[in-house]
Amino acid sequence: MAIHYPNGRKFVPDTNDKPVARGNSQSNRGMSLENELNLANQYYLSRGIANIHKKPTPIQIVNVDYPKRAAAKITEAYFRQASTTDYNGIYQGHYIDFDAKETTSLTSFPLSNVHEHQVTHLRDIVNQGGWAFFIIRFSKLSETYVIKASLLIAYWDQQATHRKSIPYVDIATNGQLIEQNIMPTLPYLKAVDRLMLANH
Amino acid sequence: MAIHYPNGRKFVPDTNDKPVARGNSQSNRGMSLENELNLANQYYLSRGIANIHKKPTPIQIVNVDYPKRAAAKITEAYFRQASTTDYNGIYQGHYIDFDAKETTSLTSFPLSNVHEHQVTHLRDIVNQGGWAFFIIRFSKLSETYVIKASLLIAYWDQQATHRKSIPYVDIATNGQLIEQNIMPTLPYLKAVDRLMLANH
Repeated sequence: MAIHYPNGRKFVPDTNDKPVARGNSQSNRGMSLENELNLANQYYLSRGIANIHKKPTPIQIVNVDYPKRAAAKITEAYFRQASTTDYNGIYQGHYIDFDAKETTSLTSFPLSNVHEHQVTHLRDIVNQGGWAFFIIRFSKLSETYVIKASLLIAYWDQQATHRKSIPYVDIATNGQLIEQNIMPTLPYLKAVDRLMLANH
Repeated sequence: MAIHYPNGRKFVPDTNDKPVARGNSQSNRGMSLENELNLANQYYLSRGIANIHKKPTPIQIVNVDYPKRAAAKITEAYFRQASTTDYNGIYQGHYIDFDAKETTSLTSFPLSNVHEHQVTHLRDIVNQGGWAFFIIRFSKLSETYVIKASLLIAYWDQQATHRKSIPYVDIATNGQLIEQNIMPTLPYLKAVDRLMLANH
């Protein structure tokens, strides 16, 4: 169940929300949400409900060894910046595109968790008529929401002059809570249905 | 211009069409087609025509070094089998999904260039209502065609009892030739339009 915090609560910046080095603790922090999304996508795929996948991490390969009678081994490679979001696919004929992030903050989702290229990509998907959204987990509240990309974009575009985070209240009010379940544990497409079909 | 070879020409297996080790000469052979597709996708993205990307190669990362004041360096990793096709995105509201392969054969496209998982994936995308297709380049003919996934699937499903390749004639007749241009050099979405809209 969602606990809606009172509006007007003072925003306290959380040191845990600072961006960390790529491939470091940030990816570990996101592990649980990523795993739940992967399990949900496997479930949707096996039932013919949707075909949505997480894209592989983009890697710049510099050196590969080709040992005899063994798999090719990459011995030097580097992480590259993705130019899109992490997840895309098809659901009931709709092109689906989203990213997913966790925050330990109780009061807001810091925009430092989001990259410019992700916002640019989501903006383009909205223009192309796709279903573009963002999944945000407040890990300390055990609540996961789906918000429309347009809400994220609106906050992103004002951050230079106003706040650098999306208030929890705004996410809980305009977004849709993903109700936890048994299988899959995170049936996010139900929340996506409510989100995308309600305002059409 | 497409030169339509006479039907009934004897199929001569070409040694160059044998599958080769992953990450080896096959990826080099495909380089040119991949580059042209990437340039076309960049063009479509910049003009707001479509948002289609090649997925990164899936890598299993085993070891990463985190040197001070330098980028994280992957020191041990392996190629993983992809579970989808290489390309997907959105075009005029349609979910787009395809793979692209080159062959040096003059007379047919050997199904050894295709993996089971790619066929399974394309089959599912067709069921989900997406635009699923395959791009085939006959490199020695300098001709590149788009065929519907359903044509590939039909040949795939009969290969145990019948032929293990799609005849050139069938591709040229049922597919659409991508007319070369200046910018982009391979405007494949024009051929996709003709392919997908003609039979609807």
